[in-house]
Amino acid sequence: MTHEIAVIPGDGIGQEVTPAATDVLEALDIDFEFVEADAGDAVKEATGEALPEETYELAASADATLFGAAGETAADVILPLRDAVGSFVNIRPAKAYPGIDAVRPETDLVFLRENTEGVYAGHEDRLTEDVSTLTRVVTESASRELAEFACDYVDTDEHDGFTIVHKANVMRETDGLFRDTVAEVADEYGVETDEVLMDAFATHVCLDPEQFDVVVCPNLAGDVLSDLAAGLVGGLGLLPSANVGTERALFEPVHGTAPDIAGEGVANPAAAIISAAMLVEYLGYDEEAAAINEAVEATLEEGPRTADLGGDASTEDVTAAVIDRL
Amino acid sequence: MTHEIAVIPGDGIGQEVTPAATDVLEALDIDFEFVEADAGDAVKEATGEALPEETYELAASADATLFGAAGETAADVILPLRDAVGSFVNIRPAKAYPGIDAVRPETDLVFLRENTEGVYAGHEDRLTEDVSTLTRVVTESASRELAEFACDYVDTDEHDGFTIVHKANVMRETDGLFRDTVAEVADEYGVETDEVLMDAFATHVCLDPEQFDVVVCPNLAGDVLSDLAAGLVGGLGLLPSANVGTERALFEPVHGTAPDIAGEGVANPAAAIISAAMLVEYLGYDEEAAAINEAVEATLEEGPRTADLGGDASTEDVTAAVIDRL
Ligand SMILES: CC(C)[C@H](C(=O)O)[C@@H](O)C(=O)O
Ligand SMILES: CC(C)[C@H](C(=O)O)[C@@H](O)C(=O)O
Repeated sequence: MTHEIAVIPGDGIGQEVTPAATDVLEALDIDFEFVEADAGDAVKEATGEALPEETYELAASADATLFGAAGETAADVILPLRDAVGSFVNIRPAKAYPGIDAVRPETDLVFLRENTEGVYAGHEDRLTEDVSTLTRVVTESASRELAEFACDYVDTDEHDGFTIVHKANVMRETDGLFRDTVAEVADEYGVETDEVLMDAFATHVCLDPEQFDVVVCPNLAGDVLSDLAAGLVGGLGLLPSANVGTERALFEPVHGTAPDIAGEGVANPAAAIISAAMLVEYLGYDEEAAAINEAVEATLEEGPRTADLGGDASTEDVTAAVIDRL
Repeated sequence: MTHEIAVIPGDGIGQEVTPAATDVLEALDIDFEFVEADAGDAVKEATGEALPEETYELAASADATLFGAAGETAADVILPLRDAVGSFVNIRPAKAYPGIDAVRPETDLVFLRENTEGVYAGHEDRLTEDVSTLTRVVTESASRELAEFACDYVDTDEHDGFTIVHKANVMRETDGLFRDTVAEVADEYGVETDEVLMDAFATHVCLDPEQFDVVVCPNLAGDVLSDLAAGLVGGLGLLPSANVGTERALFEPVHGTAPDIAGEGVANPAAAIISAAMLVEYLGYDEEAAAINEAVEATLEEGPRTADLGGDASTEDVTAAVIDRL
């Protein structure tokens, strides 16, 4: 069976790390068909559209999508692409790697971020010269879908339930609905949960990240708190993410376009390659996914390393080393 | 001239650290008249009201208010009290103290948090069984008032402008209005600003807190990011805050009620005492405020210390030591 993979490198180092990820995928004994498409600042400059219709359609029909990075146009690209693949959950692991400088090396978290609504539903108005509004939307159905996913996600020996993070003491109706629905679903599944306010989470994750494991939260909370966790593990450089829907999914490194080093062939491909491992796992190839992750971890530990990790290897050197270790 | 100070100890260790703060104030050569009032879980249990009308009225008429902490009812108490004093800005310094364990000892930040609107404006609805909404409100006038305050705040040798933190790539109209208004006011005042997205701020403040100084942001962003900074400096225990309006203001330690140690007389009064120093400064007594801050810093460094800092002194011991050093 051939898996059609949409490949959208985007801007900056997206152009370098995305091919690295597809090189790794090609080294596996799985049948992929890669179809490349444009998105981002460069195509906007050329055509006026940051996300051409064909790219949206491709992501909406491919089995899975690999995305690189976009610059100024990031929101115009990534938000519609999440919608194209019907993603309801954004999976954001944040774990420190051995040998990599981290503020909190004991951090090992996974954020399951609601991926369709909250402030991202984005109904905004300028009511008067003085007053603007944004309607934040929280539905029981989206909260339930996320919670069901979370319950399945933690149904392994590795996890004991999850933590619900919210701000229901202020957003009583909306985050209240989120919290109550997620807790109710967890109850139905027999999954243990605890809950923490999002501001308190921000303090406690710095003081003692080991008290948390899987975190289930609304869209913007997930955006900010997973980036906080990225800071604790030493930066966005190594973090992968998955935007998962019922029929398809999109995988992207959490880092941006890194304009300062773009074009030099020295970008660290690790996050893109780990994102590709998440893609492989999503398609059902657990062993191959584990093999990629182990090869990346060994390479992070033993080298070669790119400049961001104190080495002088090229993107290609690191990619070749990962493939060698598969 | 006598300054009428509303004193609202609230629940838990609020009952212990607030008297410590008034003891310090009484040791100054300033004429205070303290008027005590109830708020919080205990008064709710007794009367059904977490914030009795008299308490609100007192805060709304006193020259300044000292608040301790509230438990479960925190939001029902503190949000109306901020309104009672007409507070438009929440000032939250987050600085690491010498000799105190911190994740990032080089952290020295001040958050100027918008204190009236954003998601806290709180218009919520349950539109259908499935759908709930919250209307987030951002006004040009509140953004302008905050920005003018911020421009005055940084008008000292200590500061070079401020950083505007927002999420205008997603909340384009509302956070766009916030960002544009604040930047415009800063321009009028000749104050330098830069801007960072709130998720990127969360990463970067962990990696390198020294790149930031004064941060100006919307209400919820300030709530979460100042608590993140609290984590970086070692917890909420030592952090003061001020809710400032044009005619009056309310001062509170950022910590909570600490039910685990409440009633034992061992709570650390430092945050409440530093909050009292902010009150004294607000009333125009800069030298006295500096004296309190120096006395607290010396006590933190040389002791006596409460249990949270590894010592075995009581709240009273620490308070007496601060007063001795005035
Ligand atoms: C680019 C932006 C719209 C996006 C988001 O806010 O979700 C980004 O920060 C992310 O987390 O992938
Ligand atoms: C208690 C709560 C309503 C409050 C807030 O969200 O502002 C608290 O977290 C704070 O920061 O003072």
